Parts: sequence; structure tokens; C-alpha cells
Amino acid sequence: MPKKEKGKLRVIPLGGLNEIGKNLTVLEYADDILIVDCGLGFPDEDMLGVDLVIPDISYLEANKEKIRGLVLTHGHEDHIGAIPYCLRQINPPIYGTRLTLGIIENKLKEHVLPYEPDLRCVSAGQTVKLGAFSVEFIHVNHSIADACCLAITTPLGVVVHSGDFKLDITPIDGEMMNITRLGEIGRRGVLLLMCESTNAERPGFTPSEKKVGKSLEYIFNTTPDKRIVIATFSSNVHRVQQIINVSARHGRRVAITGRSMLNIVGAAVELGYMTVPDGVLVDINEIKRYKPEELTLITTGSQGEPMSALYRMAFSDHSQVTLGPSDVVVLSSSAIPGNEKLVGRIINELSKNGIKVLHDSALEVHVSGHACQEELKLLQALLKPKYFMPVHGEYRHLSANRELALDMGIEDRNIFISDIGKVLEIDSKGARFAGVVPSGKVLVDGYGVGDVGNIVLRDRRHLAQDGLIVIVAQVDTDARLLLAEPDVISRGFVYVRESEELMDEIRQLATEAIADKLDACDRVDRMELKTSVKDTLTKYLYNKTKRKPMVLPVIMNV
Amino acid sequence: MPKKEKGKLRVIPLGGLNEIGKNLTVLEYADDILIVDCGLGFPDEDMLGVDLVIPDISYLEANKEKIRGLVLTHGHEDHIGAIPYCLRQINPPIYGTRLTLGIIENKLKEHVLPYEPDLRCVSAGQTVKLGAFSVEFIHVNHSIADACCLAITTPLGVVVHSGDFKLDITPIDGEMMNITRLGEIGRRGVLLLMCESTNAERPGFTPSEKKVGKSLEYIFNTTPDKRIVIATFSSNVHRVQQIINVSARHGRRVAITGRSMLNIVGAAVELGYMTVPDGVLVDINEIKRYKPEELTLITTGSQGEPMSALYRMAFSDHSQVTLGPSDVVVLSSSAIPGNEKLVGRIINELSKNGIKVLHDSALEVHVSGHACQEELKLLQALLKPKYFMPVHGEYRHLSANRELALDMGIEDRNIFISDIGKVLEIDSKGARFAGVVPSGKVLVDGYGVGDVGNIVLRDRRHLAQDGLIVIVAQVDTDARLLLAEPDVISRGFVYVRESEELMDEIRQLATEAIADKLDACDRVDRMELKTSVKDTLTKYLYNKTKRKPMVLPVIMNV
Repeated sequence: MPKKEKGKLRVIPLGGLNEIGKNLTVLEYADDILIVDCGLGFPDEDMLGVDLVIPDISYLEANKEKIRGLVLTHGHEDHIGAIPYCLRQINPPIYGTRLTLGIIENKLKEHVLPYEPDLRCVSAGQTVKLGAFSVEFIHVNHSIADACCLAITTPLGVVVHSGDFKLDITPIDGEMMNITRLGEIGRRGVLLLMCESTNAERPGFTPSEKKVGKSLEYIFNTTPDKRIVIATFSSNVHRVQQIINVSARHGRRVAITGRSMLNIVGAAVELGYMTVPDGVLVDINEIKRYKPEELTLITTGSQGEPMSALYRMAFSDHSQVTLGPSDVVVLSSSAIPGNEKLVGRIINELSKNGIKVLHDSALEVHVSGHACQEELKLLQALLKPKYFMPVHGEYRHLSANRELALDMGIEDRNIFISDIGKVLEIDSKGARFAGVVPSGKVLVDGYGVGDVGNIVLRDRRHLAQDGLIVIVAQVDTDARLLLAEPDVISRGFVYVRESEELMDEIRQLATEAIADKLDACDRVDRMELKTSVKDTLTKYLYNKTKRKPMVLPVIMNV
Repeated sequence: MPKKEKGKLRVIPLGGLNEIGKNLTVLEYADDILIVDCGLGFPDEDMLGVDLVIPDISYLEANKEKIRGLVLTHGHEDHIGAIPYCLRQINPPIYGTRLTLGIIENKLKEHVLPYEPDLRCVSAGQTVKLGAFSVEFIHVNHSIADACCLAITTPLGVVVHSGDFKLDITPIDGEMMNITRLGEIGRRGVLLLMCESTNAERPGFTPSEKKVGKSLEYIFNTTPDKRIVIATFSSNVHRVQQIINVSARHGRRVAITGRSMLNIVGAAVELGYMTVPDGVLVDINEIKRYKPEELTLITTGSQGEPMSALYRMAFSDHSQVTLGPSDVVVLSSSAIPGNEKLVGRIINELSKNGIKVLHDSALEVHVSGHACQEELKLLQALLKPKYFMPVHGEYRHLSANRELALDMGIEDRNIFISDIGKVLEIDSKGARFAGVVPSGKVLVDGYGVGDVGNIVLRDRRHLAQDGLIVIVAQVDTDARLLLAEPDVISRGFVYVRESEELMDEIRQLATEAIADKLDACDRVDRMELKTSVKDTLTKYLYNKTKRKPMVLPVIMNV
């Protein structure tokens, strides 16, 4: 490690800490900036109407000319999903492995950009020089093929970013995570390890993807007389490969349904990440030619997403597939927190239609793609980093990962639990937090990026909770006269047809509030009238109904 | 079994099937109706602004004079929570064990009723005669004390309703579920078993409540130097007893916080369901007198409920308790589906403040109160029912319980998966579904019971998703003139200050839509003008923003 180096390395997460997803980390040294990943997140339940969340990259936009490149660890949405949006503000060369870039190309087709993005393909084992940084891509196992962790040589030493990883000793594509290379790097000294924390609360090792293959084999053996429908994540190329393999072994044809599944399988076959024996794949429109026991269907929708292929099948709304008692459905996935009820809805609907659903964790039809505690410790043992920063997770996960580092003998003062926007500064004297840069959540709603913020969300929550009441009144402020009884319009508050009395009272109270105000002062402005109507009605309605609908007075001066 | 009986027994669930909670079952024979339980449910995530869900009991109201009694299995909200609401429509004598009635009395204090409810206390082992029915209360284990299942003798035979139960061989209060009595009843013949299905998907046996005691002992032994804060369900009297016992053994004082915890512990001690050694309980206001290692705190909030005592502690908003690194927090509970994120928020906040949180299922700081597969099968084995109806659960749970019955040798045609409002008719010839009665969900929102229905909810969802736009225009329909440019008010749609251009376009389009309509016809009514404005703007905004705010045109004829 070059000890005499005078510069400062700045490590700035702009996403992925104290939240799930939207992973983006910035490394900065003198006039060079390197970006690691550019992911999206999904909205919290109180972000009503929001489709996606992307990182606030105003810091990068302000330092555009310093950016030497964006390097990607793998092709999951939480690592690449914000690229189409961020490319409106910055346009760095983008480095990733073949499958990762293939997925991005597919995504970018749906977005209009002012220029052609600069995609540069790398393979595990390669090193890319980007300004002061030199980035080595190192193969890891994960629930998507072609995933890497990054060993980034900086003037101050080596920073390793784990990306998302697990150690799979018997992986489907034959390549175990390259722990040998990581051990070599560790032997030469690692300045900082940024390590994912997803499963830091879980003891032991994550089971191999092969375990799922064995469970599938068991299901195929014990269900020889039914059509087998398997839902899984489309990006889990190895899972899909296993389903194809076991189907082929049992003499079944495989049909695929769901847009993203078709896209990714297409790309994976084309790029050589998947091998399909001749004649095994059949078009979903041809499945009527085969008996149930001759078929496997692979589908999207394992998270219960409304409008996914599985959802449409469950609710009898899929144009090519009708499910019935001659089907068995396997959910080869686990529900992402927040999706439990959606998944439950599908299981209920399928069960009602007499379809057997296999989803038990006991059956091991799914394994995680993330390292558990022993694997996280293994990575630390190989790298022996001087400084440690847990990344990717809510505080509980970061904190659990910190505990592991303490167990491994890293000193407390060398462990940094950071936050988005928080700058960790490292120089030859040591490491310390040093200020913040702008950061946050940019909300995407329809075509709008960033036009929904706290005020809009507060109003949506208010409207969602108790609806609204619009009071429309015509007044002559000069003559100080209310010209007619006000109109009352209500939405989302009460069922109006059964609440005529309440509506009458509202009208009456609004009339009085306006008349009082007009009587009381010589000169009345509309704002005062509005406030009076709003306060009177809000108070009355809360006492009467214990609800607080939004009251919108419209006072027109005629 | 009296085979020659000519009457028909009707079994009608009005809640608890294809849903979680709001359990209510009706048994009807000739002119006698018996009600089992009267629970509430919690709103689904799409029931915006709704506080509680109660069963539609219009069938009971219409047959009021037939009702001989309401019998309660135990004191959980999903079995008794709708009583204060239903007592506005019906007023049967209510039979329950001492603790169950104690909890109801507490609840009823918060409601104004036109009459004194008729509460009648029974003990396990007692039998109550109610018209054609005679109801025997039989002790079971559950996560609340004083829980019973019911053996209901009808003119056609015995119907057993399991209530919620588990078999605890080493329960805290010394009484195992009375399987001997159930075996005796089974030997004499059971017509129908209605059996809960909560854990029907889980293999094996549910662990004993004592298991939690051992885990607590371990935590107290390994954390001798910290204050121990334990959050659990207030109704779990035995859990609280165990916490008190282990604290006393370790020489700790116990303070209690959280309104429902104080209420229930108070009632349980008074009624003799809990024993507290002298001097162990201290007032929460006195805790400053003790060192951390001398104290245990028992609190509500194990589901992460905002405003619960634990939530307020975590967010430094509790007037008597300030948490810090000298505390360890134990979540002695599991998250009810849908509450995972709320619980996660508390764990994150506590971790951020340096507080260790123990919540792992690996630690066994919580056990379920419901029977797993082997216990469900044991109940069937003891009772050997002729007919079987799984109750309490979503379809997936009912269906899993049905599979167990098939395993136990009950014939498919004798298993009835019912639904709310669906009538199962049993006579000497057999059992069959025979029609439906009114049933459903009545939504409670603030003081309103039933005034929020599908239309109101649809509007709330619409408003929540994309907000609203109000267009206010003054026209003279006779002169066919728009009197001024319309006003545009927006809430929850876009941040108006940054969207002035869009607002201008909306105003312009509304102006044109109104002017066109006024020009086009000789006679225009306001409804036509409104429709035109609404359609024009909805279409324009969707194309422009991919959002569909609610458009509310207010057209005033001056």
C-alpha cells in the first residue's frame, strides 16, 4: 500500500444504505470519480402512487466532468434500474459483463435518450483503468449469472466492493466464486471492504442453487401425471436452466410465458448463458398439442405481481393458459418483504380452483442469492481489510454485518456504518466521516421524474385517508352578500346517497361561516372566507365523524 | 346420535372463512339460533382509511328473536372485538369464561350502548343450555388464558367448534388442553367438527409456551448487566407471567408500560390469572431509582404499531423511558402478515441508537398459539367427526386443513370448505350446502359504521394514486358565454410551483373545451360541460404524464 500518498479518497454512497435497493456508490480521488452500480428502489407503502425510486445524483451532475466511468456488478434492477433515468443527467462510459449489458440494452429500448449510451463489455478477470482507479472484475455467485465483485485499486490502496454475492460450491454454470483471487488480493492488503448486508442476520451458509435442482427432481418424480407450472424470477438464469434440464430429463416440453421471462431467456440463450436441448422449447401457443404430463410451463409472477403471467393464469385471464386440477404450481421464490399478501392472494386463488401449490420453505424450491453470516465472514477472512463498511441494507442489516466484523477482529473504530450522502474520507493518516453531499430519493410517477415530493405525497395520504369535500360558493364581497346556498361535492368521504342529512348540515354550516364573516368585517378577502369555511367544517366533521376529510373551499367573487 | 330427528341443522359462518379474523359462526335449528364468537378483522391494504372490519350481521338482526345466546371461545379481538358494534343491532346473553368477560367489560367502557349487556360467566367444564343447543366449554391451550373449545349438542348430534387452540403439554397455568374429555365426546360420536386452520400449512407440533421461558432464562443469564425490555402481546397472560417469573428469579423489578398491557395485567392479577411476587412490580415512574441490571420492562408494541409504548421508546418519545446502549430489547412475538415493515422500522431505529434487539426465530423468544398439523390431526383422531369443516383462515389454510382431514380418512364428500354466508344444512339424510344468507364486511371508519363502501373506497384509491384537479368555471349558459378564465386547483398531483406551465395548459384546455361546447349547441346543460372538461383533461393528462388524477369540474351558471 503506497503509504506516502498525499491525496484523499472519498467514499460516498448515494443509495443502498438504510434502505433496500437503489444501490449507487461514488469513489472520488482528486479529479476522478468512479461510480459503482446505479440501481432503483421500490416505493415504501406511504409513497402513494409512486412507481419507482431512484437516487438523487445532483452531486454527480455537478461534478460531471470528473466522472471516469460507471462500473456494474450485475444485472439486477436494484443495481442497474436507474441507468435510463440517470443517463438524462450524466453520460459516463458504462462497464459491465455481457449479460448485464444485454439486460441494459433491452431496458434502454423503452426509453428515449438524446444520445447513444456508451456500453463497454468486460469479463470477470479483466481490469479496467478509469482515471486514478483501476477496477478488476472478479467472478462471484449470485441469483443472476455473470455477477462480479470489484477490486478497485486507488492511489491509497485497494477498495473491494462485494456487489451482491454468495459462495456456491456447486454452482450451475460450473464456476465457483473466485475466492482464490480474493485471497491473493487480501494477501497484498486491502484498504477498505464495502460488503453487502442482505443476509447478515442469518446464521450459517446459504444453500447451493443445486439444492433447488434436487427439490425440482423430487417434485417431477412425485408428480408424473400433471402439468408443472413453475414461477420464478426471470433474471435467475440458472434457476430457469435447472427447470429446463429437469424437464428434458423427464421428457417434458417447456413453454415460457411472461414478457420479462421471454426477454431474459432470449438474451441468455443468445449470449450463451443458457443451453436448451433441441426440441425442448415449444411456443406457448402450441401447448394444446401436448398432454399435461408432457409439459412444464415457466412463468413470471412469483411475487404475486398483478398483471404478471401467473396472476393472469390464477385469475383465469391468461389468453393461452387455463389452469385446473391437472396442474401443479411451484413458486420457486420467496416473497420480498411487503409482497407477502400479494403472493398469498395468488395461492388462495389457485387453491380455490383446485390447483395444488408448492411453496413451502420446507420443500427448498428456492434458495437465497445472498451470503449468510459464514460467507460474509469468509470474505472478510480472505481480504483482511483495514477498514470495513457494511452496505446494501436497512440499519438492522448494516448493524448485523458490523457485529460480524467485530467478531472477525476488526476494531470498532475501523468500522464505518455510513448513510447516503455521507462522505468517508480516507488518507494516509486514517479514515473518518467528513461532511455530506446532496442525496435522497427521487420519485418516478408515470412520466414524471422528481415532480412528486413531500407536499404531493402528504396530500395523497390525506385524500387516501378520509377523502375530500369541495364547498363552492358565490359571493359579492363588495355588497358583502352570499349569492346562493353553497354547493357541496364529496369524494371518498361518505356514501353521499345515505348521508343527505350530513350534507345538509355541511351546507348549512358553510353558509353560516361565510355569512358571519361577511357580516363581521367591512372588507373581506376570499382567503379569509376560505379559512373560515375550512376551519369550521374540519372541526365539525371531526367531532361528528372522527374523520378529517380535506376541505377545499372555492369562493367565487361575482 | 338421535337418527330419527326430523329437523335440519344449519351451520352458517358469517366471518372467518377466506379471511383472517372477524370470526363469527351461526348454528340454527328450528327456531333457535346460537352464535359462536363475534370478532373483528383488520382492513386490507386497499381499504384506505378504514380502521376496523366487522361482520355483516343483517341475517342475525332479521332473526333477532331466535337468538338464544352468544358463546365465546376466548378473549382475542378476532373473536370478541365486534361485540360493542353488534350490540347496537342485537342483544343476546353473552357467555364466556372469566378472563374473556373481563376483557369485554374493559372494552365496553369505551362504547355508549342503549342498555346494559347481559354477560354470563362460565368455566371450562360447564354446560349451558340455549334453546335446542347445549354448549359444553372445554379447556384448550392458546396464547391467551381461559380459552375453550365448544362441544355443542344439537338434536342431530354433537358439533365441536375448536376455537383457537394448541396442545401444550407443559403449559404455564398447569392445565393441559382437556383431550380426555374430547376423547370421551369422540367416543360417543361427533356429527361435525369445525376446526381452526391458522397453522394448517405447518408440519409438526407447536412448541410449548415453556420453551419461551427457557429462551428468556438464557437471555437473562447472558445479559446480566443491562436493562431488559420485552415487548409482547398484552393478552398473552402466560407470556407476561413468565417474564415476571424469570425477572423475580434474577432479582429484577418489573415495570409495565402501554395502556393495553396495564389494563390486561391489572385484570389478570385481579381475576387470579397472574401471580406477582410481592415487591416485584414497580411503577414506571419509579424506574429511575433502579440500575439497568435491576430492571425488566414489559411493553406493548411488538407489532411495531405507531403510538405504541415501544414505538414511542424507539423514537425517543416516551415520557418515562429513554432507551440507550444499556438496554436490550426483546421482541417476544412474530410479525402478523402485513406488519413486517412496521416491525422492521422499530428494529432499525433501535439499532441506530445502539440498542441490541433480539428477535430471531432462532432464539425462540416466541411460539405460536395455534395448532400445527400433528395437533390438528390429533383433534380429528380424538373426535372422529362424521363431517368436517375447516374454519378460520384464507382459502390456502382451509385447503391445507382439508388435506389433513383426507389424510385422516375422512371422505372427500364429508369435508365442506364453506364461505361466509354459505349455509351448510345437515339432517338425518346427510349434509349439503343449501343457499346463502346476507354476509360481508362492514367497514368501521372513525365513528362511522358501514358508511364507507365500495364507491367511497374506489374514490380514495383514485385520489391516493394520482391526486385531483378541480376546475372552477363561471358560465352564462343562456348567453352561452364563459365569464372568465377557469380556476385550477390541484392537490396530490404535481408540485404546482414547479409545474406552472402544465397548470397553464390545463386552464387553456378547459377554456377551449367549455367554449367549444358553448359554441356547438343551442342549449347546453352543466352536465354536458362537465363531461367535456373531464374527458378532455383526463385524456390530455394521461398522454402527457401517464397519470390519471381525478378531474372535478365545477361549472357555475351565473
